[in-house]
Amino acid sequence: MEVGIIGASGYTGAELLRLLHQHPYADATYLTARAYAGKKVGDLYPHLQSVADLVYEEFEADEAASRAEAFFVCLPHGESMHVVPALLQGGAKVFDLSADFRIKDPDTFSAWYGLEHVSPSLLEEAVYGLPELNRERLAGARLVAVPGCYPTAALLATAPLLRRGWLEKGEIIIDAKSGVSGAGRGLSLETHYPQCDASIHPYNVNRHRHIPEMEQEMSALAGAEVRVLFTPQLAPMSRGILCNAYASLGDAGESLLEAYLDAYRDEVFVRVLPEGKWPQTKAVSGTNFCHLGMAWDSRSGWAVISTAIDNLVKGASGQAVQCFNLAMGYEEAAGLEGLALFP
Amino acid sequence: MEVGIIGASGYTGAELLRLLHQHPYADATYLTARAYAGKKVGDLYPHLQSVADLVYEEFEADEAASRAEAFFVCLPHGESMHVVPALLQGGAKVFDLSADFRIKDPDTFSAWYGLEHVSPSLLEEAVYGLPELNRERLAGARLVAVPGCYPTAALLATAPLLRRGWLEKGEIIIDAKSGVSGAGRGLSLETHYPQCDASIHPYNVNRHRHIPEMEQEMSALAGAEVRVLFTPQLAPMSRGILCNAYASLGDAGESLLEAYLDAYRDEVFVRVLPEGKWPQTKAVSGTNFCHLGMAWDSRSGWAVISTAIDNLVKGASGQAVQCFNLAMGYEEAAGLEGLALFP
Amino acid sequence: MEVGIIGASGYTGAELLRLLHQHPYADATYLTARAYAGKKVGDLYPHLQSVADLVYEEFEADEAASRAEAFFVCLPHGESMHVVPALLQGGAKVFDLSADFRIKDPDTFSAWYGLEHVSPSLLEEAVYGLPELNRERLAGARLVAVPGCYPTAALLATAPLLRRGWLEKGEIIIDAKSGVSGAGRGLSLETHYPQCDASIHPYNVNRHRHIPEMEQEMSALAGAEVRVLFTPQLAPMSRGILCNAYASLGDAGESLLEAYLDAYRDEVFVRVLPEGKWPQTKAVSGTNFCHLGMAWDSRSGWAVISTAIDNLVKGASGQAVQCFNLAMGYEEAAGLEGLALFP
Amino acid sequence: MEVGIIGASGYTGAELLRLLHQHPYADATYLTARAYAGKKVGDLYPHLQSVADLVYEEFEADEAASRAEAFFVCLPHGESMHVVPALLQGGAKVFDLSADFRIKDPDTFSAWYGLEHVSPSLLEEAVYGLPELNRERLAGARLVAVPGCYPTAALLATAPLLRRGWLEKGEIIIDAKSGVSGAGRGLSLETHYPQCDASIHPYNVNRHRHIPEMEQEMSALAGAEVRVLFTPQLAPMSRGILCNAYASLGDAGESLLEAYLDAYRDEVFVRVLPEGKWPQTKAVSGTNFCHLGMAWDSRSGWAVISTAIDNLVKGASGQAVQCFNLAMGYEEAAGLEGLALFP
Repeated sequence: MEVGIIGASGYTGAELLRLLHQHPYADATYLTARAYAGKKVGDLYPHLQSVADLVYEEFEADEAASRAEAFFVCLPHGESMHVVPALLQGGAKVFDLSADFRIKDPDTFSAWYGLEHVSPSLLEEAVYGLPELNRERLAGARLVAVPGCYPTAALLATAPLLRRGWLEKGEIIIDAKSGVSGAGRGLSLETHYPQCDASIHPYNVNRHRHIPEMEQEMSALAGAEVRVLFTPQLAPMSRGILCNAYASLGDAGESLLEAYLDAYRDEVFVRVLPEGKWPQTKAVSGTNFCHLGMAWDSRSGWAVISTAIDNLVKGASGQAVQCFNLAMGYEEAAGLEGLALFP
Repeated sequence: MEVGIIGASGYTGAELLRLLHQHPYADATYLTARAYAGKKVGDLYPHLQSVADLVYEEFEADEAASRAEAFFVCLPHGESMHVVPALLQGGAKVFDLSADFRIKDPDTFSAWYGLEHVSPSLLEEAVYGLPELNRERLAGARLVAVPGCYPTAALLATAPLLRRGWLEKGEIIIDAKSGVSGAGRGLSLETHYPQCDASIHPYNVNRHRHIPEMEQEMSALAGAEVRVLFTPQLAPMSRGILCNAYASLGDAGESLLEAYLDAYRDEVFVRVLPEGKWPQTKAVSGTNFCHLGMAWDSRSGWAVISTAIDNLVKGASGQAVQCFNLAMGYEEAAGLEGLALFP
Repeated sequence: MEVGIIGASGYTGAELLRLLHQHPYADATYLTARAYAGKKVGDLYPHLQSVADLVYEEFEADEAASRAEAFFVCLPHGESMHVVPALLQGGAKVFDLSADFRIKDPDTFSAWYGLEHVSPSLLEEAVYGLPELNRERLAGARLVAVPGCYPTAALLATAPLLRRGWLEKGEIIIDAKSGVSGAGRGLSLETHYPQCDASIHPYNVNRHRHIPEMEQEMSALAGAEVRVLFTPQLAPMSRGILCNAYASLGDAGESLLEAYLDAYRDEVFVRVLPEGKWPQTKAVSGTNFCHLGMAWDSRSGWAVISTAIDNLVKGASGQAVQCFNLAMGYEEAAGLEGLALFP
Repeated sequence: MEVGIIGASGYTGAELLRLLHQHPYADATYLTARAYAGKKVGDLYPHLQSVADLVYEEFEADEAASRAEAFFVCLPHGESMHVVPALLQGGAKVFDLSADFRIKDPDTFSAWYGLEHVSPSLLEEAVYGLPELNRERLAGARLVAVPGCYPTAALLATAPLLRRGWLEKGEIIIDAKSGVSGAGRGLSLETHYPQCDASIHPYNVNRHRHIPEMEQEMSALAGAEVRVLFTPQLAPMSRGILCNAYASLGDAGESLLEAYLDAYRDEVFVRVLPEGKWPQTKAVSGTNFCHLGMAWDSRSGWAVISTAIDNLVKGASGQAVQCFNLAMGYEEAAGLEGLALFP
């Protein structure tokens, strides 16, 4: 099956090429990237050796429709919503990695992204692509909004406790550290090697655009309003997110580990570590896995749940492939069987 | 003035040598290190060029008394309490970087460190050496228990709100990330380069030995019991601690930044950043500074206060020198004027 | 086909498990590791999730013979030669990653390794497992001595010029930088994170044990004695070797690039970059690829050829799998198709 | 004494501020930076706390003359030569960190930098500011061309052997690895964290603009033409250069170490390590020191000499301060006494 990648020159596009190269049923044959049209993949990414001769093209809707049956859209937010309707009209399935179809309420979207939504009619249909929470709705889905990297880590950390109604107060604290590739391939002093090497710092605390997405999904899981306090941090590593969620559970927390083992028992990509063990980002590097560790404090009733994912895989391109597999009826792990690169 | 360093071969000892080398009034002339007795400083640390010919000796109490008037003790916990009484009896001032004299209650000490305290009578006298909170008691002090690296970062992050009685519930959440030098010079898989490079992970959550020290001091500041939830994490950098403290303040949080600016107005080593700015560990690397940033969320009443320090300087050896300066009546910043190494 | 890994607890063993997990014909089912007998793979390596329940066993020759038809031996030098004869007698094929069967002359082996060789009769039969230079001899081979990481990088950098007889003088200068995993999983101050992070330094210059191996193979390629000046260096990264070879070629160097393109035209794992492009270790990370760049200086007649490999893959476990594929008659790239993890 | 920094917003400017902050006789009071005029130092560099309130200004020659008696010029090559004549006319001493006054022959300058020199008459007067080689000429100098980072490391590595006439052939091979700050504060994919983290690669081999500078000085030292083969490499660290020089010496190499110990005996900033020891960049981090290690191979007559410096200190701003001290008649090490930050 031939698939296309729209906005393929960034890190999530490159990661899709890496993953699809090992996919048994899908072949990436149509790549677009405005700034690099006419250039070969190998010119930008010497590591993508086996697909180095693929050429980036300028996006054109009719051409796209004739070239692929499914599309991964890796455009920035605000651009994706202009392209997705045309792709759907062409009869294709669309897996959008931008924020454009994640937030159900167009006013909330406008408030956080400073943009009017141009395709609000599609918001209802778009499935939030976190398979562990939404698997049934992904089967056969036509438009999937693949979650952001921080929300993926935060939702996997909290879904079981939220579903059980264990959250005592309305607040969840999310303290998350991301590798620098999370900021993309665009240049800035923030991501200049000498500035961020050997250093860690918070940014956009309580203002990051992933907040409304987390609150929407957490509130839905809890059946009640959940407010997220969010401290994103940049850590000196290229890949990975370590996300610590803090929640007040009272005595319910006593069976915390049991509840998580139960909730994720059948998940191929989620692994709940035994008591006293904690996840590390390197152990999931390059993979679609999410590792979880947790502890509950009997004195205060508070719990901390820690998750590690690869921000470019489970936090973006790998999850998109997982959604694609479910939407197409393939094995959920097709193309995602590789083990982590360690050390 | 001649000073000694007991247990001088580790990282805090080396850092003391670096700092004292620039101190206008103190000279490190007596160094002990059992495993390296007879070796030169330069054999272990090629960077300590100007003091490379100093020789480590075996500790001997009488010799110590005849060689220096003040001692920095860099022994592991459990060893320090065997040495400190002899040093005091010799008439010297002692700045102990171990945990042995930080915890006032010997039973609490035993519970967390698995050891009977051998000098409980000194616990009362020992001054907890965080100058920003305890400056008056440091003047002329004979025995100073220099705080741990995590507690320094956590206490500077929370003291102003605790003193004002703003903490609504009894809990403080401390989510802290340390550079690998915090684990010392001892070898372990945890600190083996290929294992910890490019990776971040929690360890000893809610079990770390710095918890009783934080709770003791925070409770004293608040005048009420404070329980600490503590998630220490190892980050892929050699130096630095970034510590995020979360506390529920209700509406009092509205004047959070003002309160901190006020509390630290006259502190030479503490800098409260303007609204929207966050500390980064690299900006304090090699220095005794602590940078703070903060935000209060009006929806939930929760605040996050973030501090960055160098774990080996303000978190250990620099703070010890600052305490020494105060105890001796020198300028507080003597020997600590250097700016951070950046980038 | 069932294969065994002897000495499976180190990094090369773990890497073999990662690679064989994706191999279409081979399955690692017998793992030995004296120090970890009875432990599960997942206890040591949380990243090896899909094979986490495999258990390390104590090596026992008869058991080994009954469990697998081919063995990868990842023991330290000096231990391998005690085990290999028994494995061969059991009728298996052996791929030895140690140095024990690489050096043809047992006296040279003794001189550099300080050991008497206990199986000198096998040295003749052992095939030096660098497929790009030795492919014919690998087909059907019973005992393969898989090259060291530095020699692999150095030989791929120099083989084409040596074979053409272009080396004017008898010397080759090899200036190579290795990631820290090249030192293995054993602990030392050299590989302690705070000591080697953000730092680069030479070690064992002109004394490294990979020298006799390089000289043996280079001399054979040149048909004349080649002397290697070797500066190994530890670089602050977990994986990768960048190896620069310097050689005086005179005017022959004018067709250097052409000669290399020609020599490696049909190689699946070697890629000669176009003029002006240079290899980077990250572009081959996790793969069996070798990237080459080069320049010839017309003023002096000297050439520099630069190669990048992943020390644990093309420099060890990946190359072992490549040799295994050739010895068994499988496709050369079976199990080695994955693209590099970048960024 | 008041000094100015022209082009003060880059890394060498920031490093000068850090060093001058500890200088006993000089005070940086006039800073220019076109793009940041009106901004405070603290806005760009939170680590420069004690001088955070200094304000960058737009350069104006008369203003400059009235504000300082000596200037450090940190402008890019091609800009410096437009500013330096005016500064000199104002009666000041000038320490230029750009390439504009390093190369004596304006045609060579034009060939390598693609620019006509606008102040060729000053080339004769400009003193090449490597104090260890040129100390006499620096006393009282009016215009000093501070060497580049690579040439500093390469010249200290080779000067003693060149001066003794030991170089048998006309070639020196320089294989050097630089930290990323060497590329400055400007943004590029080359210096984007995810691209250069955990990776090492050559660039501009035999084409780097530091080549004519090295050849000019090496030829002068040798009294004969020296050709440099130069392989610069980017290593995953913020600071530091490790430079390996290879030279064919024949039997003269037997007394290599002795010759270097002799040559550098009285140098405060150069340290020749004992046999078998090699320099590491971290041991000189933040300092003006240069550490050297070396080996001579009796079989081939070739020597390797390895130097480690901090590219921003001995390779730029620290060396500029050292030159300033000599030109002004201060102690050579004034302001440069700090020990390295390690680990």
